[in-house]
Amino acid sequence: MENNPPKKNSRLHISKGKTVKSNINKAFKPKQVEQLSLQEFINGIRSSNRVVLSQAITLIESRQEKHQILAQKIIEKCLPYSGNSLRIGLTGTPGVGKSTFINGFGKVILNNGENLAVLAIDPSSQTTKGSILGDKTRMEELTIEPKVFIRPSPANDSLGGVARKTRETIILCEAAGYNNIIIETVGVGQSETAVHSMVDFFLLLLLPNSGDELQGIKRGIMEMADLIAINKADGEGIEAAKLTSKQYKNALHLLPAKHSGWTAKAEICSALNNTGLDKIWSSIKNYHKTTIDNGFFAQNRKQQAKYWLEESVSQQLKTLFFQNPEIKKEYTKIEKNVIEGDLSPFTAGKLLLELFKKQTD
Amino acid sequence: MENNPPKKNSRLHISKGKTVKSNINKAFKPKQVEQLSLQEFINGIRSSNRVVLSQAITLIESRQEKHQILAQKIIEKCLPYSGNSLRIGLTGTPGVGKSTFINGFGKVILNNGENLAVLAIDPSSQTTKGSILGDKTRMEELTIEPKVFIRPSPANDSLGGVARKTRETIILCEAAGYNNIIIETVGVGQSETAVHSMVDFFLLLLLPNSGDELQGIKRGIMEMADLIAINKADGEGIEAAKLTSKQYKNALHLLPAKHSGWTAKAEICSALNNTGLDKIWSSIKNYHKTTIDNGFFAQNRKQQAKYWLEESVSQQLKTLFFQNPEIKKEYTKIEKNVIEGDLSPFTAGKLLLELFKKQTD
Repeated sequence: MENNPPKKNSRLHISKGKTVKSNINKAFKPKQVEQLSLQEFINGIRSSNRVVLSQAITLIESRQEKHQILAQKIIEKCLPYSGNSLRIGLTGTPGVGKSTFINGFGKVILNNGENLAVLAIDPSSQTTKGSILGDKTRMEELTIEPKVFIRPSPANDSLGGVARKTRETIILCEAAGYNNIIIETVGVGQSETAVHSMVDFFLLLLLPNSGDELQGIKRGIMEMADLIAINKADGEGIEAAKLTSKQYKNALHLLPAKHSGWTAKAEICSALNNTGLDKIWSSIKNYHKTTIDNGFFAQNRKQQAKYWLEESVSQQLKTLFFQNPEIKKEYTKIEKNVIEGDLSPFTAGKLLLELFKKQTD
Repeated sequence: MENNPPKKNSRLHISKGKTVKSNINKAFKPKQVEQLSLQEFINGIRSSNRVVLSQAITLIESRQEKHQILAQKIIEKCLPYSGNSLRIGLTGTPGVGKSTFINGFGKVILNNGENLAVLAIDPSSQTTKGSILGDKTRMEELTIEPKVFIRPSPANDSLGGVARKTRETIILCEAAGYNNIIIETVGVGQSETAVHSMVDFFLLLLLPNSGDELQGIKRGIMEMADLIAINKADGEGIEAAKLTSKQYKNALHLLPAKHSGWTAKAEICSALNNTGLDKIWSSIKNYHKTTIDNGFFAQNRKQQAKYWLEESVSQQLKTLFFQNPEIKKEYTKIEKNVIEGDLSPFTAGKLLLELFKKQTD
């Protein structure tokens, strides 16, 4: 890993041909400059240059056709170098202490001689466009670490978009040599199912005396969890955290078994005091070893790739369908009939498909 | 409701023009006879004639184009009379006592002056084609009741098929005047999510000392449940059932809140001894009243209709795509590349879509 600490907003375009470092300050002024070549991107990513990595991710997130074409080439070139990481999904509602947790947990990872990339998806940041870095000040200690890459990404307007970009970003981070990747979500939207389908391990962060924050969490997430960590087990919260953890241990025991052969765990921790984080890390490492040994790890990754191909086809078919001018015109009208109970969903679907086929024939 | 008890296999074609009753015996011999007209179907269904209802469902399940066209017309004609039922999803692995439960529970419903239709989806019966009625002998007492309609349907090869047919069958049953409809599944496949999206209430049946049968249940089902009933709370099983129910009560309390404003319950019962079934029934009635009063019931039905329109469009788009000869030829090859990690799922998806568009342009 190169020793170049990440800077905020370092993902803006920088001039081609000059060294990356000398341009970081210029990069703060957003101006249109010449882009790096495909080979420069690959070299930069492969040598763990975080500025280049950031730029490549910006390309992936761009809606511009020419950016998309280059991004796709970068991804395919990175693909042979990807796969060698542990992908960890981290979910918890706002206020549960995710950023503080990542800050402390990241240090545990570093102390164990490994490195870390953090990808944050924030569905609520749709309008603020990347400004959620402000919320990431609690990761301050981590941001100055050379072996850490932090990338907050505003949620896209479509779930498919979030999913695609995040999954492709994982590939780039892996090609850059990151062997632990945390994908952070807030647990309120559909993105968790998508994230669950791209990670190896799913970690749910809760508070002692859980209840209030659960109101915000989408149902089904509990059963995805490989580990539930009760955070803020500090000060007067310790006893409550212990009790909550015990309750979840019992509850998890009652849930159906996982294909991974892993029994979901409940642990307590204090991200503030850095307690319990070591135990969570060793639990995750234990999971990693167990599932590699029993073959689930590789099998699951293959299943996920297959799933994402299906999703990709499905998303693009829908885009093709909904961009059709006739469909655009008729869909809302027909949908209203269905909702009012005047037309069955399947007859309505058939009508719309006939309309679509007529347009494409 | 007419007083004509259902007969096994009564769904075979019967001659047109003669009275339904006099033809029941003939109906046991499968021979190709003239079909009822659209109006005859509607009249039969609307007068709660179970033989005609059965025939109409057979039309829905048929893959023949001409059957499909007539079936669609029947559904649209029935639609204005549909909606007035409580749709109950019932899930439990084989051995948990679903049929015995339905038998006892059905009698509770009848004793309360209501009627009942039972639709069984059995994903494992793909090859046996409808022969699962043999498994339904435990519903014997129910099958002779005039106010009960039981329809076992073999699972279709596609989830969409199961879902579409079941949802359309519900419409027909409602038009025939059934005000309680139980949709039964075994909880092991994808069909539960589909069923969950077409019912008002989701009931999960478990055994005392749950554990073994949970291994078979798909994760996520627990969080769908509006009520978990611990069956076989009889003889020496009573204490274990009480303990299990208490554990689930605690566990359900830890799950995220439901949009319905309803807190999921855990109850014990013995379908064998007919104990606890009244309480489950009053709990369901309570749910019904609560969600009608708070507006969730109607809102949820609208959401479900919207969802099924999207599903219908999505399924048909996929069919259109996968039936394309070029896609048929290339998909498996490209999928293999994706699974082996030689091609990213999104580039692969793009390639396939380009291929598809070239064919349809």
